[in-house]
Amino acid sequence: MASLVGLARLTAVAVAGLVTFWALGFQTSFLQAATDDDVHSSATAQLDFIYSVLHPLLMVIGFILLTGEAILAHRTLGGWSRGTRTSAHLALQGAAFAFGVFGIWAKFQATDGVVSNFLSLHSWMGLLCLSLFAAQWVVGFLSFWHRGEARRVRATVLPWHVFLGLYTYGLAVATAETGLLEKLTFLRQAARRSQATAASASSSFSQRSTESAVVNALGVGMALLCGMVVLAAVSPKDRPGGKSSTTRTSKAINGYHYGTSNVVHVSDGETNHGPRHHDHYHYPRPTLQGGKKVAGDEDWKLHN
Amino acid sequence: MASLVGLARLTAVAVAGLVTFWALGFQTSFLQAATDDDVHSSATAQLDFIYSVLHPLLMVIGFILLTGEAILAHRTLGGWSRGTRTSAHLALQGAAFAFGVFGIWAKFQATDGVVSNFLSLHSWMGLLCLSLFAAQWVVGFLSFWHRGEARRVRATVLPWHVFLGLYTYGLAVATAETGLLEKLTFLRQAARRSQATAASASSSFSQRSTESAVVNALGVGMALLCGMVVLAAVSPKDRPGGKSSTTRTSKAINGYHYGTSNVVHVSDGETNHGPRHHDHYHYPRPTLQGGKKVAGDEDWKLHN
Repeated sequence: MASLVGLARLTAVAVAGLVTFWALGFQTSFLQAATDDDVHSSATAQLDFIYSVLHPLLMVIGFILLTGEAILAHRTLGGWSRGTRTSAHLALQGAAFAFGVFGIWAKFQATDGVVSNFLSLHSWMGLLCLSLFAAQWVVGFLSFWHRGEARRVRATVLPWHVFLGLYTYGLAVATAETGLLEKLTFLRQAARRSQATAASASSSFSQRSTESAVVNALGVGMALLCGMVVLAAVSPKDRPGGKSSTTRTSKAINGYHYGTSNVVHVSDGETNHGPRHHDHYHYPRPTLQGGKKVAGDEDWKLHN
Repeated sequence: MASLVGLARLTAVAVAGLVTFWALGFQTSFLQAATDDDVHSSATAQLDFIYSVLHPLLMVIGFILLTGEAILAHRTLGGWSRGTRTSAHLALQGAAFAFGVFGIWAKFQATDGVVSNFLSLHSWMGLLCLSLFAAQWVVGFLSFWHRGEARRVRATVLPWHVFLGLYTYGLAVATAETGLLEKLTFLRQAARRSQATAASASSSFSQRSTESAVVNALGVGMALLCGMVVLAAVSPKDRPGGKSSTTRTSKAINGYHYGTSNVVHVSDGETNHGPRHHDHYHYPRPTLQGGKKVAGDEDWKLHN
């Protein structure tokens, strides 16, 4: 697990490096799009350029990478208390959402106008993604402040939260991939057009192919990162304490109250917020091979 | 679960309808791409057009929709024996793979040449996707023929198979989205160019915006379908028999032999292939609320 998280972070750093290199190393690509019809003054063009560069930077680093880190928070902050981990998750996701909204706002500032931004599939997917993200965050926020109330209800909601969250994350990555493709196709077409009119097209073409390689690597890197983050989120959890399962199970029995009603209300004192405090119920189960394997907890599932 | 599968299939039918409507209703879009430099004879252009139309049809209907149906086979064929279900899954995935290879081959037949197809992010993602798919299929095929040998090894491999399979499915959908975006951006640029030269651009523009809406709906439909299929695959399984869990558990205990060695070899007689035959071990567990809830089996996890 630790090596998977490490690999995911290494990929995240590579993705951040690639998108920064693309945005700063191939400035003409972003200039070209902004000044396509050559009617702006130099100052407007400069602003357009900044907004045009900001969009991929904010969406990839601020939104996708930060969201991935927020998802991993439940795995990487194993030593912290559950409440602190949830706060960190909530705060990181809130920051990611703010970056996402800022990134879309930057796109609106371009001279094309707001409406023209809602015609492409990229924008439709992005809108779906942001809506899901906002709904998830609000539900998570409310759930965080009502954590003591209906433990059973939260246990029902949690797998849905995890599934929808990972789906939204995957959708965000897919949306980013479409954005990269849109930009590259646009540039390729523009290059073909200039090739037809100008003679000095060969240097432009070689620059384009380097840029293609960078952007393709960025796209593949994001796809791999997405797989690693989702894998880390659904794979079985490490037990940092390493105590025998018998101790843990009996602890769980002592910690919870069982009832026969459909919804069980349990008072959620602060003393319960240890690192081994789970949202789903533990049932006493016989173990195989001297307590090394506990059925259920080592299954891959949508719990945290 | 039944309603989720039904909704997924309804979405699949809508997606199939949309891609067919796009391919057959907007033929000029595919013609335009094929005869961009106007040097081909009419017969070559006709062939190019057919290959150009075949690619989205084969990839969306033959590859993505069939793969989704193959994933759902473990859920929809609940009344069949486990061996039959696995055969159906394997056969559907094999057919999907064949359609996928055929769809890529169709793209190679276009006059652009083979190499030019491997420059875009769309092709890189597609290549990664097909490689993963092929590897998964071979492992699944081998595992199917060696099913009696090392049950414990298969239980370890299965969550990985499910995770990688769902990841590949998601990647296929993301790749298709990039393909749609690539095509639309290409067409938008071409329309803009013709707008600059020809006066009768308004009818072309309105046609483009209808086409955009169709393709965008297709893209959003595929994204939603992907979510539903993955949700159906990871959500808790229905028990078609509806027997009490106590009966099932004791059956499972009688059906399996426990050992203390790391790999347990169990002879896999045909009598074991009932609909309630699982790949992971069952441990006898006490049940809560009169046998209505069994911990573990109703968790969302990467098992079938």
